[in-house]
Amino acid sequence: MTVMSLISKVKSFIQSRKLFQPCDTVVIGISGGADSVALTLILNELKHELGIKLHLAHYDHNLRPDSAADAEFVTRLAARLNLFLTSETCSIDLTRASGSLENAAREYRKEFFIRTADAVGANVIALAHHRDDLAETVLMRILRGTGLQGLQAIRPKRKLDGKTFVRPLLCVDRQEIEDFLKAKTQDFRIDETNRRTDFFRNKIRRELLPLLKKDYNPGITGLLGNLADTVGDDYDLLEGLARLSLAALIVERTDNAFTLSLDQLGEEPRALQKLILRRAARDLKGDVNQIDLSHWIEVKDLIENRPDGSIVNWPGGVWIQKRASHLIVGRTKA
Amino acid sequence: MTVMSLISKVKSFIQSRKLFQPCDTVVIGISGGADSVALTLILNELKHELGIKLHLAHYDHNLRPDSAADAEFVTRLAARLNLFLTSETCSIDLTRASGSLENAAREYRKEFFIRTADAVGANVIALAHHRDDLAETVLMRILRGTGLQGLQAIRPKRKLDGKTFVRPLLCVDRQEIEDFLKAKTQDFRIDETNRRTDFFRNKIRRELLPLLKKDYNPGITGLLGNLADTVGDDYDLLEGLARLSLAALIVERTDNAFTLSLDQLGEEPRALQKLILRRAARDLKGDVNQIDLSHWIEVKDLIENRPDGSIVNWPGGVWIQKRASHLIVGRTKA
Repeated sequence: MTVMSLISKVKSFIQSRKLFQPCDTVVIGISGGADSVALTLILNELKHELGIKLHLAHYDHNLRPDSAADAEFVTRLAARLNLFLTSETCSIDLTRASGSLENAAREYRKEFFIRTADAVGANVIALAHHRDDLAETVLMRILRGTGLQGLQAIRPKRKLDGKTFVRPLLCVDRQEIEDFLKAKTQDFRIDETNRRTDFFRNKIRRELLPLLKKDYNPGITGLLGNLADTVGDDYDLLEGLARLSLAALIVERTDNAFTLSLDQLGEEPRALQKLILRRAARDLKGDVNQIDLSHWIEVKDLIENRPDGSIVNWPGGVWIQKRASHLIVGRTKA
Repeated sequence: MTVMSLISKVKSFIQSRKLFQPCDTVVIGISGGADSVALTLILNELKHELGIKLHLAHYDHNLRPDSAADAEFVTRLAARLNLFLTSETCSIDLTRASGSLENAAREYRKEFFIRTADAVGANVIALAHHRDDLAETVLMRILRGTGLQGLQAIRPKRKLDGKTFVRPLLCVDRQEIEDFLKAKTQDFRIDETNRRTDFFRNKIRRELLPLLKKDYNPGITGLLGNLADTVGDDYDLLEGLARLSLAALIVERTDNAFTLSLDQLGEEPRALQKLILRRAARDLKGDVNQIDLSHWIEVKDLIENRPDGSIVNWPGGVWIQKRASHLIVGRTKA
């Protein structure tokens, strides 16, 4: 694949998924690694055609001795491309964060991107996830247990906290990105932290995916991407139905709880029941990203087998109680 | 797991999935292998409680020198359990069948089960697929490329050609079945053909699943089963919506073709568009089992990019033509 054909492939993807509107200001999250450097170069070449303005945002997690050198590299690249850059260094010791280091780093980074977008009047944030990331995520979800929601993995376009996150490189794979940078003689930084933080993902990337490619199907990366893609469409449709159904099931609503009719919930198709409760949790501002199939299986058991008054706790302070002919979904304030 | 707890596990599964109605006559497909022998013993123990009558059906594919000994083994088992048995030996040389040997064998066997059910007044046919079969099938589908439809893999209950096919052992795994037979000191036949016919499935069974269990998640079999299960619910819901949408899109219908409004199809949610065409193919008696994601991707390309009059061919004689503002889905008689 030549440089131009990669760029036009990304352009087609951007257009078919309507990732940008003309006049959008787009914040590009850039680490200095191959993926985000390629994303920056590609969007920079397409910006006039697409009618978008670019602004780079670099977050230094301060986790490695050479992270300052990454920031310097990004600063030089921005200067060469004549693009604005906002840089920030994390002042917190992330290695002491509760939960996984990777999750903590992602949260801080996301918050920084949103803050930067607000500061420069941008509604869109572009990230450099590509097809191999997508395939790895799908496999990771399958191996840890998932349903439809998790199989979507990484969406090309997703609203979050009032911003639209887009991933224009989801249509290309790692090799294409590296070939592109080589052809452009563009260097990039190698992030050793990335290689250490998530053992499970790295094992999938370095052992499982290569094995599946070699012994089972050379096209597996594309197939997993297609799966995530079509499942994303399926999920959108079901989620829309669940939203409508939830509204119809509410007997009483307060700031921190929904009271739902258990009989009516039971009459909904099985596929919607779990999405209705998930939707309720989301409306209560619970952390729905942590809700998986096992949480729904526990609620099914609550409904079918446990005594009146029993409670199931979901992640993020959401609780579900069976009370006579009702199911109450509530949230304990943090 | 004790003998009794396995039986009660299967009983719960039968009840929660409503696999049988009281007074059903159930044809059990029995090969003489561990799985179908266990299914026969278990249903035989539960038959009074469930209020069902049993009838065994054995199909000798005549592919191995010792297949007659399998038939003999099944005949003795039926006599010992005091169950009726219908046996039939295939008179065709299946090794010369077009397509894969496994597919041909499955088709003949299915046709025999349906014929036997008709002869004894049964509406239900019980097969011995278990949780390992389900997990293997899910992996196989993922590795060959699939969407929601294929991920369902093996359903516990499915209508086909006027009969209900049920799989009461989908809730237990191979090891539980073998332990059960050992505890019962019940022997069974080992089918070497089964081990040879499908290279890809056997590779998944013998190499990939054990690797995933060992290195990634010891509970992977159950997780893949849960995935297939919830996806089955999701698919049922979407399929029901697609059926309604298809009816609304039809501009003209003849015996062998549907003419659909292309504009209206484009307004349907993306997740439904593929299911609507699949539904049309099914209504035309096309072989929908062979339709996968790649066929839909080709039709999307037909709609979006190919000139008026272009045709895409689907498996089983179904063709799809773009003609002005219409999409015609037709079937060439075999």
